[in-house]
Amino acid sequence: MGNKGLAVAVDVGGTHIRVALVALDGTLLKKIKREVGSARDPKTFFAKLISLIREVAAGHEESLAGIGLGLPGICSLKEGIVHQLPHYPGWCDVPAAATLREEFSLPVFLDNDANMAATGEHWLGAARGLDSFWMLTLGTGIGGGLFLNGKLWQGESGFAGEVGHMTVEADGRLCPCGKKGCWEMYAASYAIPPAKRTEELWRQFGIYLGIGIANLAHILDVEHFILGGGISQASQNFLETALQTARERCYKKLGERLIIRPSELKEDANLIGCAAHVFQVN
Amino acid sequence: MGNKGLAVAVDVGGTHIRVALVALDGTLLKKIKREVGSARDPKTFFAKLISLIREVAAGHEESLAGIGLGLPGICSLKEGIVHQLPHYPGWCDVPAAATLREEFSLPVFLDNDANMAATGEHWLGAARGLDSFWMLTLGTGIGGGLFLNGKLWQGESGFAGEVGHMTVEADGRLCPCGKKGCWEMYAASYAIPPAKRTEELWRQFGIYLGIGIANLAHILDVEHFILGGGISQASQNFLETALQTARERCYKKLGERLIIRPSELKEDANLIGCAAHVFQVN
Repeated sequence: MGNKGLAVAVDVGGTHIRVALVALDGTLLKKIKREVGSARDPKTFFAKLISLIREVAAGHEESLAGIGLGLPGICSLKEGIVHQLPHYPGWCDVPAAATLREEFSLPVFLDNDANMAATGEHWLGAARGLDSFWMLTLGTGIGGGLFLNGKLWQGESGFAGEVGHMTVEADGRLCPCGKKGCWEMYAASYAIPPAKRTEELWRQFGIYLGIGIANLAHILDVEHFILGGGISQASQNFLETALQTARERCYKKLGERLIIRPSELKEDANLIGCAAHVFQVN
Repeated sequence: MGNKGLAVAVDVGGTHIRVALVALDGTLLKKIKREVGSARDPKTFFAKLISLIREVAAGHEESLAGIGLGLPGICSLKEGIVHQLPHYPGWCDVPAAATLREEFSLPVFLDNDANMAATGEHWLGAARGLDSFWMLTLGTGIGGGLFLNGKLWQGESGFAGEVGHMTVEADGRLCPCGKKGCWEMYAASYAIPPAKRTEELWRQFGIYLGIGIANLAHILDVEHFILGGGISQASQNFLETALQTARERCYKKLGERLIIRPSELKEDANLIGCAAHVFQVN
């Protein structure tokens, strides 16, 4: 890598973009945050993103090893394509990696934000040293990133981890995706409107979070769950209920071993995961 | 292996035990089937099993490479222990492999029946050549065996694939396991009592089967599902409904690629998987 000891990391959210300059040890040297705004077509988005990257990288162009992006949608790391981005109308199979590669002549790695957060937590956060774990990002929806045997499991086409659309109530609440009873209608921001955050509502939230975690634990026999995303910062309101519910709904031996804990890197997990990809440390 | 070209395969079911002598190419040379009977404590069971194995192996003792067992419960292949066997009261952490190893001085491999069936289908059946797939056995419950990257995924403690207890209706039908809304209450024999097998009931069965398959596909992005177990032999009654439901409930790109098909080895999948373990061909 020579003196190419810096990565540009990009965290694309539903309302904001954050861009950081990251050192080889994961330190965030510089970080900027901007609103995405209402014009979200790929052309407008990339014009803005390219200028943000230039701003963050200014003066360090010669030291850049690459660019990493975590996006809130269906992405293919291998192909560098963003297939679907629910909060960004008009995005369909956008060759995002190629666009940035042409602009900056640097390697570009992109993946969905939950996979990036899982990678970040595995490198420097709550999942250090774990061979297998689930990273669940609780925000507008529920994202999932899965490590098995020390490696991110991408799935056969790169779409693995879409746990938010797991059905937990076959005839339940209508999800914006068009289906009924998706997990994220019960254990993400949909279920906890800011004005109504009563103790009972958090309890319900915790129960459904636990039900989904028990499902994932049963299916794969993976014992560690790391909770990230905005809502995880209020985990004192639901973590105990979630753990208790998950244990009750698992085989005894599996339930006893279950561990659910909050992210350590918090809102930086995604950025640090992006850097991990660039530095190929994970 | 020298001339040790035969395996003893044991398929333990809810009502019957089947024991077979299997050749290196997977041919079943001899097969016997006996009722388990009502005395199911480990001691009685092993006395009966040992005599069945002697019966099948008679005259071939010198050619045996080992014994494989597929059991309907929670097993640990690595430890050779049967942790829990729902239809066999009194079984708790039974060292089954050690018991048979001491009796026959042969290597013994045991695993749950869905894992054995997955291994069998991967070696010589409907999953030949597939890197990743789910084997679902539809019987009294729903068993799951999962291959990822060409290998059986056992989970962190050997309990992976317990898909039958995935919650699909958070407040649904009471399962004998004590939980509510387990998948196997809707897409296994509980949902299809022999006297009431109307078209509408099969349609409901197919819908719930599809819901669970969509969950598994979303979570792992695995595209191939092989259906085994007794009920799969009536798959013409529900396969199309299941596929249609699963496709509707998956991301479009994932749904398009989804393949659900019946087992090829049918009731012998488990036995052939046992032999695959003995011969270490899988």
